Amino acid sequence: MRTAYHEKLAELSEQIGQMCGLAAAAIDNATQALLRADLSLAERVISDHSQMVEMSVAAERSAVTLLALQQPVAGELRTIFGSSQIVADVDRMGALAVHVAKIARLRHPRHAVPAEVDGCFAEMGRVAVELATRAQEVLRSGDPDKAAGLRGDDDVMDDLYRDLLTVVMDRNWAHGVPAAVDAAFLGRFYERFADHAVEIGRRVVFEVTGALPVEQEVSTY
Amino acid sequence: MRTAYHEKLAELSEQIGQMCGLAAAAIDNATQALLRADLSLAERVISDHSQMVEMSVAAERSAVTLLALQQPVAGELRTIFGSSQIVADVDRMGALAVHVAKIARLRHPRHAVPAEVDGCFAEMGRVAVELATRAQEVLRSGDPDKAAGLRGDDDVMDDLYRDLLTVVMDRNWAHGVPAAVDAAFLGRFYERFADHAVEIGRRVVFEVTGALPVEQEVSTY
Repeated sequence: MRTAYHEKLAELSEQIGQMCGLAAAAIDNATQALLRADLSLAERVISDHSQMVEMSVAAERSAVTLLALQQPVAGELRTIFGSSQIVADVDRMGALAVHVAKIARLRHPRHAVPAEVDGCFAEMGRVAVELATRAQEVLRSGDPDKAAGLRGDDDVMDDLYRDLLTVVMDRNWAHGVPAAVDAAFLGRFYERFADHAVEIGRRVVFEVTGALPVEQEVSTY
Repeated sequence: MRTAYHEKLAELSEQIGQMCGLAAAAIDNATQALLRADLSLAERVISDHSQMVEMSVAAERSAVTLLALQQPVAGELRTIFGSSQIVADVDRMGALAVHVAKIARLRHPRHAVPAEVDGCFAEMGRVAVELATRAQEVLRSGDPDKAAGLRGDDDVMDDLYRDLLTVVMDRNWAHGVPAAVDAAFLGRFYERFADHAVEIGRRVVFEVTGALPVEQEVSTY
């Protein structure tokens, strides 16, 4: 009985790991759709999101069922509780990838962002995929050191975001207000995506050690 | 013993309700700080946020303790589980109020937003306070009809946000890119604040009825 319970717990973790994989694929495709003004790829990111939503609802139900199934011990309680919060984070990562895809779709057939900031978005996309993949690994391994390592990637993302805003807000920006607002929002979506990946690492550390690391600093934007 | 348990549950709800009250006060003060370019008020919103963070950590711990205390029945499980997710929503509402205050502080002594959109932000601030206050009432009453009513206010917020973006993106916008980006981000902070209040209503409905209402449409921005 106890073993069946642990199997179900492991299943839930695996399910959430798969959601992380979906989030990584979604932000990767969304970035390509953005950089190539690829409408069909943008549409795919948007329609694929329904799978993430279904998995998220299923994972949340599994967590409640697990709690009801048997009196869990303290460590398991933390795991189940944390799982539900991690589901919310991954779900949000998927939604942010959809936000990126929707801007690509909205501006099609034009490119949503001027070529001047393409390099920045390509790099933000790369770091976002890296973060989601790392979060997936951390979920599987439960390794607190790897979880803490997510912060390094997040710092890179923060720097990219800051650089982007500097370019956009500069008086030499020659692409007008709508492109500036698009670029600023897009940058924020990547930055938030990264924050949620870090939050997953924070949750894993909490599950493993019982200590919740200090929350990240609230950024101005 | 059972009664003590229920008392602790009620205490947790009350604690989360108080957090909603803090979020309402925070967004109210942040809006005033923004509209009046009031630095000391902006600073107060930012420093007051530590109280919200403390309450949030305490509420989360209470929820885990409640789960561990005694085998809860299905309805109670949902309540405790939902509480933890509501804590995350209120926490985020507080953080969004801080975001508004930080832009007011960053642009001081200038006004962060041009007088042209003051009316829009005053209205967004009013609706945000209304939503946080309603969410607090819903948490206290557990009334699913009132929870569903949050959506009406959220529609008003969505309209205000759309109107704001139309003004900002218009070719007649005469205030430059940085003011446009500030205004667009600020608008999004209010819109997200409203979404989290609606999410709280959705969670309360889940707790009361066991059915999770369909998630809101993901907006483009």
